[in-house]
Amino acid sequence: MALLKNIGFTKSLDKKNYKDEVETLSTKLAALQLVVKEKKVPVVVVFEGWGASGKGTHISRLVNPLDPRFFNVNTIRGTDENLSLRPYLCPFWERTPEKGRISIFSKSWHRVILQIDTDKWKLSEKSRETFYADVNAFERQLSEDGAVIVKFFLHISKDEQCRRFEKLESNAATAWRVSDKNWMQNARYNIFLEMFENMLEQTNETPWTIVESDNSDYAEVKILRTLVDEIEIAIENQDAKKDTAPTEKTPIPKFIRDVNKTVTLTDTAYKEMLEDYQQRIHILGHKLQVSHRSVAVVYEGWDASGKGGNIKRLTKEMDPRNYVVIPVGAPSAKELSHHYLWRFFGMMPKDGQFSIFDRSWYGRVLVERVENLTPVPVWKRAYQEINEMEAHLSAHGVIIFKFWLDIDRDEQLRRFKSRQTDPFKHYKITEEDWRNREKWDCYEDAIDEMLAKTNTPYAPWTVVESNKKKYARIKVLETIAKTLELEL
Amino acid sequence: MALLKNIGFTKSLDKKNYKDEVETLSTKLAALQLVVKEKKVPVVVVFEGWGASGKGTHISRLVNPLDPRFFNVNTIRGTDENLSLRPYLCPFWERTPEKGRISIFSKSWHRVILQIDTDKWKLSEKSRETFYADVNAFERQLSEDGAVIVKFFLHISKDEQCRRFEKLESNAATAWRVSDKNWMQNARYNIFLEMFENMLEQTNETPWTIVESDNSDYAEVKILRTLVDEIEIAIENQDAKKDTAPTEKTPIPKFIRDVNKTVTLTDTAYKEMLEDYQQRIHILGHKLQVSHRSVAVVYEGWDASGKGGNIKRLTKEMDPRNYVVIPVGAPSAKELSHHYLWRFFGMMPKDGQFSIFDRSWYGRVLVERVENLTPVPVWKRAYQEINEMEAHLSAHGVIIFKFWLDIDRDEQLRRFKSRQTDPFKHYKITEEDWRNREKWDCYEDAIDEMLAKTNTPYAPWTVVESNKKKYARIKVLETIAKTLELEL
Repeated sequence: MALLKNIGFTKSLDKKNYKDEVETLSTKLAALQLVVKEKKVPVVVVFEGWGASGKGTHISRLVNPLDPRFFNVNTIRGTDENLSLRPYLCPFWERTPEKGRISIFSKSWHRVILQIDTDKWKLSEKSRETFYADVNAFERQLSEDGAVIVKFFLHISKDEQCRRFEKLESNAATAWRVSDKNWMQNARYNIFLEMFENMLEQTNETPWTIVESDNSDYAEVKILRTLVDEIEIAIENQDAKKDTAPTEKTPIPKFIRDVNKTVTLTDTAYKEMLEDYQQRIHILGHKLQVSHRSVAVVYEGWDASGKGGNIKRLTKEMDPRNYVVIPVGAPSAKELSHHYLWRFFGMMPKDGQFSIFDRSWYGRVLVERVENLTPVPVWKRAYQEINEMEAHLSAHGVIIFKFWLDIDRDEQLRRFKSRQTDPFKHYKITEEDWRNREKWDCYEDAIDEMLAKTNTPYAPWTVVESNKKKYARIKVLETIAKTLELEL
Repeated sequence: MALLKNIGFTKSLDKKNYKDEVETLSTKLAALQLVVKEKKVPVVVVFEGWGASGKGTHISRLVNPLDPRFFNVNTIRGTDENLSLRPYLCPFWERTPEKGRISIFSKSWHRVILQIDTDKWKLSEKSRETFYADVNAFERQLSEDGAVIVKFFLHISKDEQCRRFEKLESNAATAWRVSDKNWMQNARYNIFLEMFENMLEQTNETPWTIVESDNSDYAEVKILRTLVDEIEIAIENQDAKKDTAPTEKTPIPKFIRDVNKTVTLTDTAYKEMLEDYQQRIHILGHKLQVSHRSVAVVYEGWDASGKGGNIKRLTKEMDPRNYVVIPVGAPSAKELSHHYLWRFFGMMPKDGQFSIFDRSWYGRVLVERVENLTPVPVWKRAYQEINEMEAHLSAHGVIIFKFWLDIDRDEQLRRFKSRQTDPFKHYKITEEDWRNREKWDCYEDAIDEMLAKTNTPYAPWTVVESNKKKYARIKVLETIAKTLELEL
């Protein structure tokens, strides 16, 4: 189904009707903005299109009736950040709207694949392959979280584009806006038409609205009307919409625990191995810095399973300018007003760097599930969301380690008691830890399901038997060192 | 007073004592970290020094005993952000620690002046002149807010530096770390010595610790001991320290209000002038984009003085990709755990951009003062802090507008009542607005003092008589248009 081809560029318009209609729609939009704010609906508006198709002008007209405190316009500029050093969706995720706000994207994630702005984005080959799946997943995830997404493609003819470039060039104040790249696009109009067509078709799961833009007034009305309609429909459906949890087809396999069978290491063997792996990881850190890869390490585990001490051994010989340890606690009010993955996209390592997560996005399917902090359908869909996020990271070149630090009930009790009597560790044990302990069985179910559903080839789990802390440390360091030696 | 010259590079050290001392100090530091966390003291540790003087190694040893969840290491990399597009203290401000955390800077704001990393920072001539004043003010502001600041300069001899570069180059894993710039520093050792000496002397208000680093073990002990001592002293003094408010030398002049004498504009004159200024500001926006300047617009004013409507007229013809409106409300928990200026440094415009603040950092001396949210000595010192911040912005090239939208009591009452009956504006009026109104006189005092103390040549206040909304809008647009036409 062709979206762009065989479609006209200009639609006729009655000049008098135009003014009335813009007036009516603008008033409606202003009123809708208040409803959006009150009902806490996040709104994403995307503008893509040809060079000089009027993105700036139309955004300007669109925001005109809006209260400027509740929307923002996003442009990712070439100079804005080192776009190629992180997975390409990161900067866009960071700019998704809070609930109740409108985020307008002038140029967006869609154009990354076109490499029109080649100096901004460099996609790895794998990112290139998974591009459309990533974009569709991103938009689906936002929608499922309640966002209204309206995507406009501004379509103009080759002749009209040429006229507009000439007009811009003839004015000293705007001449700088026309570059050689723009003229190149005009010259190769048909090649770009194919590219745009393909991009639009592949990302049409959240549907595009093609705006015939040779006539700017017509375009304005169409944009306003579409936006008003889409927001109205979304608000009507909001109350009706009920999340339904997918039904399980197969039972979740029970994870076989053998934390106690773990071989104990002698002190000498431990010390030797620890130093060896730390040294190897030190060298790997240097290698990482000059590669285009990065590393995300996720630590999850029972309370008192030894995450802190384990992290400390991992980072012992690492260059501290090269890693960051990110403790993940309960989300802040601001974080709660976004999609729950939002905050993590801001924490992802840049090329050459390690991000070490002390707890992570898996909180969604662990504590949030067990404590009923999140409705069942919402945490159930998180498995897929997480897999999609990790696939996106991996395609960019992020090497992902996920460790589950496993101890048994008796060992946890011993550690809790010992913490209570140690003045240096006393602060580590709270009422909450004791409460969590009572829900051991619920946590076991949650862990089993997490391990079963998010153990992927590109981001596998490593279960670390941690009743013996020394053994656990060596297992983590060994896993990281050996994998990185293969990958780097 | 020479800091670097005439000082040795190597101090002797008893090998056995060394190990014991590192052990003891590390244990102390680990314990102190918990106290720092509990007492909510922010700690800033700065490492500067020669190339290959061991910054990375010493930071690594320093953090070794620490819990990695409560410190972070900051490196500003050339690729990290467009450092030259914002006032140079912005990225450092953003990385100052939360209360209770330790922020370690590997290289810092001090080296900006040296332009060693010329591709990273470009200082304007004015920034260059005010550099030392800015740095000293920055450190003083953090200290006054309770931060412990410990600054280390690692000093090595020319021969030792040469040896270290050669050693790094001889190892394939580390050879990439030695660049031509490094060798240039070694060749011109004496020139750099002069530069470092000068930098250290000028920024010694928060004192430097020079670390003789040819002997790395000696350096380690000195760093650890200094840090432990400084933190211990700071914690001891914390309870003793009492902020004292400066006593006023001269009475605050009463601001003469003439909001009612304002000439009313005819509708035709208003419309014509509005369109004229909007058009001029549209063109100035283009000019701004290709300049190395940026604009910060601060809106302050009584409740219902018309800030929102005024902002809307200002932005009407502006390119929405070129400005951002920032509503400033009560600080979040995270913002409260930082110096109060922290959040604003992250909102400053990049070159070519407008940041429009709907309320601002002046909340400190308005609502926070009147509502007793902040102790008297703390808001009293904010006038100076704010002036210093604005001087810093201005030196970078930010054009600053500050508007006070002034209405009288009767007009406010009329507007409150009309809002209550308008379904579209009803949400704008709350109990809080009525409560604020009762404190009118206290606010008048606060406004008078703010206008008197923060009206500077580089960031002047414009009082906008706003009883007549149309007049107020024209006055704001006229001020901005005429100033920018001069400046750009």
